[in-house]
Amino acid sequence: MTSTRHETEITAEEKVPTIEIVREFDAAAEQVFRAHVDPELYTQWVGPRSLTTRITRWDARTGGAWAFANDRDGVQIASFYGSFHQVRPHERIVRTFTYEGQPDGVALETLTFVELPGGRTRLRVLGVVSDFQTRDGILSSGMEVGVNEGFDKLDELFAAGALR
Amino acid sequence: MTSTRHETEITAEEKVPTIEIVREFDAAAEQVFRAHVDPELYTQWVGPRSLTTRITRWDARTGGAWAFANDRDGVQIASFYGSFHQVRPHERIVRTFTYEGQPDGVALETLTFVELPGGRTRLRVLGVVSDFQTRDGILSSGMEVGVNEGFDKLDELFAAGALR
Repeated sequence: MTSTRHETEITAEEKVPTIEIVREFDAAAEQVFRAHVDPELYTQWVGPRSLTTRITRWDARTGGAWAFANDRDGVQIASFYGSFHQVRPHERIVRTFTYEGQPDGVALETLTFVELPGGRTRLRVLGVVSDFQTRDGILSSGMEVGVNEGFDKLDELFAAGALR
Repeated sequence: MTSTRHETEITAEEKVPTIEIVREFDAAAEQVFRAHVDPELYTQWVGPRSLTTRITRWDARTGGAWAFANDRDGVQIASFYGSFHQVRPHERIVRTFTYEGQPDGVALETLTFVELPGGRTRLRVLGVVSDFQTRDGILSSGMEVGVNEGFDKLDELFAAGALR
């Protein structure tokens, strides 16, 4: 069996307070999109392997909202919430994101799903905040562990045929 | 009768793609906040004097959403929509903003209401987008006419006692 190991690229721009995440998947854009809007699927892959995700609010439509908590061994250790500003099926999601441990912090994230040859998809997540200190705080929070492990779990869901 | 003419300060940062608007009002923070969440009030003051505002969606709570259209002589000329990411009564509103004429554009706006001595309030609106081209496009769109005339109309509502 040939298996492709996909790397996640995380880029911090020098001139704007953004974080760009680019990742390819061996799945159609419709499937990668669905993994971001279907709460049953999302909870199975998002975040680091050491935590479980418990969704507490979910309406993945333009003007809807979301919230989830992360648990370790059944004990809540973090929670997050935001809005779905725009949901354009199979193409684009614009959402807001707040970690409740920093209630004044907020990021605006634009996810784009681009179909590639061979049934693959490139996901781009562009997050922006209003200052560099906040951006650099997010970068140094260890977020890449959750991003990388989450996308690896999503690869496993695709490989297992969970989204067929 | 002594009347204070309030100026609106609009600042574009050199290093981050933000637009900051600062404006003082002769009204309590609770009143300035209410003028931003009550749809009956909001529609009376927001935007330039040459247009009327027709709200088509409004749920000014954390996780809610909004949409309105601008009409000139009864004909729709523009529409806008977004989410209320966070509504913290009398203190803070975080909302997203898209002009439907540019459906891929989106700004994240944080409004803070700071009580000043003498029953006055300072409103700060900090908007951020993900690149300078978008930011400069907003600045050169003539947005300051709508901002200035809107806040002047809000002054008139306060002076008329409409929010007592």
